[in-house]
Amino acid sequence: MGLSTRIETAVAEAVAVGQGAGRATPPKLAEALHYATAPGGARIRPTILMSVAMACGDDRPAVSNAAAAALEMIHCASLVHDDLPCFDDADVRRGKPSVHRAYSEPLAVLAGDSLIVLAFETLARQSGQAPERVAQLIMTLAQRTGMPGGICAGQGWESESEVDLSAYHQAKTGALFIAATQMGAIAAGQESEPWFELGARIGEAFQVADDLRDALYDEATLGKPAGQDDLHGRPNAVTEFGVQGAISRLKDILGGAIASIPSCRGEAQLAEMVRMYAERLTPVVSPSRVPGE
Amino acid sequence: MGLSTRIETAVAEAVAVGQGAGRATPPKLAEALHYATAPGGARIRPTILMSVAMACGDDRPAVSNAAAAALEMIHCASLVHDDLPCFDDADVRRGKPSVHRAYSEPLAVLAGDSLIVLAFETLARQSGQAPERVAQLIMTLAQRTGMPGGICAGQGWESESEVDLSAYHQAKTGALFIAATQMGAIAAGQESEPWFELGARIGEAFQVADDLRDALYDEATLGKPAGQDDLHGRPNAVTEFGVQGAISRLKDILGGAIASIPSCRGEAQLAEMVRMYAERLTPVVSPSRVPGE
Repeated sequence: MGLSTRIETAVAEAVAVGQGAGRATPPKLAEALHYATAPGGARIRPTILMSVAMACGDDRPAVSNAAAAALEMIHCASLVHDDLPCFDDADVRRGKPSVHRAYSEPLAVLAGDSLIVLAFETLARQSGQAPERVAQLIMTLAQRTGMPGGICAGQGWESESEVDLSAYHQAKTGALFIAATQMGAIAAGQESEPWFELGARIGEAFQVADDLRDALYDEATLGKPAGQDDLHGRPNAVTEFGVQGAISRLKDILGGAIASIPSCRGEAQLAEMVRMYAERLTPVVSPSRVPGE
Repeated sequence: MGLSTRIETAVAEAVAVGQGAGRATPPKLAEALHYATAPGGARIRPTILMSVAMACGDDRPAVSNAAAAALEMIHCASLVHDDLPCFDDADVRRGKPSVHRAYSEPLAVLAGDSLIVLAFETLARQSGQAPERVAQLIMTLAQRTGMPGGICAGQGWESESEVDLSAYHQAKTGALFIAATQMGAIAAGQESEPWFELGARIGEAFQVADDLRDALYDEATLGKPAGQDDLHGRPNAVTEFGVQGAISRLKDILGGAIASIPSCRGEAQLAEMVRMYAERLTPVVSPSRVPGE
């Protein structure tokens, strides 16, 4: 089974548990769980998680699968809640109507809540196989999702008049990439600490790439509203360094990411994966597309 | 330490972890976590949980404390999200402004999300002490919180035109009472299954009592808006059976609850607790307060 099929299967199976096949359950909310998670985006976070797990030996594949599905469900939940009218008020996500547009605002709140819960349930279900790894996976995912340092904290900074920029960026975008590398290592029975830096650097790179896309692309290309950072006055690497400055910063960060990979069996393949993402993340900019330069 | 102090301490300590003392974290969201959880209401669910744990021997008090705090945080999160404009649009909760009124709608969504995550983190933190119990506690709490059978499912039914009433009630109100009795047993190393019925019956009784209060009392007495069921066309035992009918139904259910208590060391005390709740739950109705009778 290819990596992508493996991830899709893991996510679909985990979501199906939440949909409660054959049980009396509210049908629209059950449908919304599926709608919010499939078809997915690039599945970058679970792909990183799986790649690290495989680089570390992947000796408990069911645990890695659960970890990948749990992480992706948290990511999807965050998209559903971020799109709500009180945040980005986004009509479109992944090229289709956002969950609150397709279903309703109550169902979007509940779909997000249910996916968060399902993520932890999916991990706990593997406890018989590897209780210590599962407990660590739950701790790591919780700390990178909630308060004080997870993506909830990242969003929370946007309600403050004075923002700790480094804490904001690490929580808002970095957190789930750190979760990805660390959970991959934990799922394969390795220490998580040496994998922090790789996750943090990929997160930084992703933030810069996202800033570039937000500034350069239109809604049709992005599959979601463009120019949101400017509109909401959010900090953005393009505003800070200019387009070319942001692109070289992106390359530096990814170089650092590759250098940080802990020595392990699959080190070379992992470096290759980061290089591949680097190419995909770096926008091709023709001079005419560069605003103000 | 009295039961009530023990619960307040457990909740306060768990919430303090989420507030991240000394770390760079968004201050308003950190404050909202405290605001949403203190001062609490009657803390009925964690009191039931603790009472069952104590009736079963309570041989791992730290695990019981974590379970009680986790359950109460899920309950508080559900109140914060239920009060949102897209659900009940409630201005008042526990006699003070609801979280979205006191802070903002984005911070209310995030406070609810963070409390859900923190609940699972609080449990996972105890894994070193009792890994099997913790894994079961996480599974039980998740199943009674999310989809397909938890309080999220209960809320989800309110977006359906055709409602499975029994599934709706068990998920909406019953779920966290079932979690309370079962998690109490698990925390003390006992089987959870025999404790299902006690939780389910207390949940039913609580639903009927809530229906009575909603129909009979005003906002000042309730500390939240009254007449909400009527307003939102939600099913209600008073509409179905009348006031006196609902009161005798309440008494029957509580009698059944007491009869269902599994034999254990603290059986008599537990029966006493249910009797005490029965008195507290049953509204004192003077003939002049009974509308339409």
